[in-house]
Amino acid sequence: MSEKGISKAVIKRLPRYYRYLGELLEAGVERISSGELSERMKVTASQIRQDLNNFGGFGQQGYGYNVRYLHDEIGKILGLNRIHNMVIIGAGNLGQALANYASFERSGFRTVGLFDVNPVLQGVTVRGIPIRMVDELPEFIKENKVEIATLTLPKSRAKEMAQLLVEYGIRAIWNFAHTDLNLVLPRDVIVENVHLSESLMRLSYNLTSYEEKHKTNK
Amino acid sequence: MSEKGISKAVIKRLPRYYRYLGELLEAGVERISSGELSERMKVTASQIRQDLNNFGGFGQQGYGYNVRYLHDEIGKILGLNRIHNMVIIGAGNLGQALANYASFERSGFRTVGLFDVNPVLQGVTVRGIPIRMVDELPEFIKENKVEIATLTLPKSRAKEMAQLLVEYGIRAIWNFAHTDLNLVLPRDVIVENVHLSESLMRLSYNLTSYEEKHKTNK
Repeated sequence: MSEKGISKAVIKRLPRYYRYLGELLEAGVERISSGELSERMKVTASQIRQDLNNFGGFGQQGYGYNVRYLHDEIGKILGLNRIHNMVIIGAGNLGQALANYASFERSGFRTVGLFDVNPVLQGVTVRGIPIRMVDELPEFIKENKVEIATLTLPKSRAKEMAQLLVEYGIRAIWNFAHTDLNLVLPRDVIVENVHLSESLMRLSYNLTSYEEKHKTNK
Repeated sequence: MSEKGISKAVIKRLPRYYRYLGELLEAGVERISSGELSERMKVTASQIRQDLNNFGGFGQQGYGYNVRYLHDEIGKILGLNRIHNMVIIGAGNLGQALANYASFERSGFRTVGLFDVNPVLQGVTVRGIPIRMVDELPEFIKENKVEIATLTLPKSRAKEMAQLLVEYGIRAIWNFAHTDLNLVLPRDVIVENVHLSESLMRLSYNLTSYEEKHKTNK
């Protein structure tokens, strides 16, 4: 498979293809043309053909795409065909919410541990997972072959924790703290940031600029 | 202010500028050159100058940027200089986690209501906000001049609820449901999606492709 030089934009779109194809599968659709997929996804058909060609192109002229095949192949490209063990550091509301997302498990992301510094939380279980104290992390990560750590900690504690996690052998960090960790971590550690307040600000920008336009046009 | 034709990429970066400038303010920094800002943000200085020029360019040769001024101006562009009333629909773990984010409030996003369909939750309060039943929504939205609805509902119920909310007068939807609402809503309703599982898949892609490369190089 020639995956070299695939643009970030294409990679960003792959999970969306995966989701749409999953919905088609659920609906019992076996094959789809790029035209139909284009209509559903509101992406041009040529964009779809171009994107999927990056991975060898699974379509056939006059037949379209085999939904299950394409879904599974994209799943493999995304690394969803194997189990990733994950811990969540920070067992507040957000950490507990994420631990409760059973759908992550179905995509291969298995939450094996939930950690906090607050002794009051020790032993509380979320979806059967007991909350442990962070001093148990080094051993836990090794014993459970944990690859991914989800950080749902306050900004003030996130950087230090991220550095420790890397020492303990964590390979990827899913970061919900309101700060960029990339700057304090080795380059080969994968960081995926979810900056919720930035998303809310984009919403606010769009709302504000729509209102401005509307005002001017009156 | 000439905000016409600003690219989506620039708008996407603005909240990040806002966050970094906020951190500088907290640290007592009054002015900064594009070079220093570039180093902190890991963006080229020319990119920074180009981005900020879109909004009239607040820098001065030999002086750099006035941090407070730039922070406040970007805040205005993002619509953060006024209060947006917000409701959260779906008072499960995620809804409650979002209701607990006091930092949204500081940026002008005020959670005035929390709604669910589960009668067991009725009257439970989160950060002083009582959970209400969704049949109270139409009146509540009008009385409280609510602009934004945060949707933390299962996929199966999100589309229908989004359509109702628009009827009730909601102008923007912050969507955490694992589905695209844009297709069922009028074009002038702002939708900002937070697809957590897609973020996790991008992490997985990066982890997998890193491991593939590493394997090949051995």
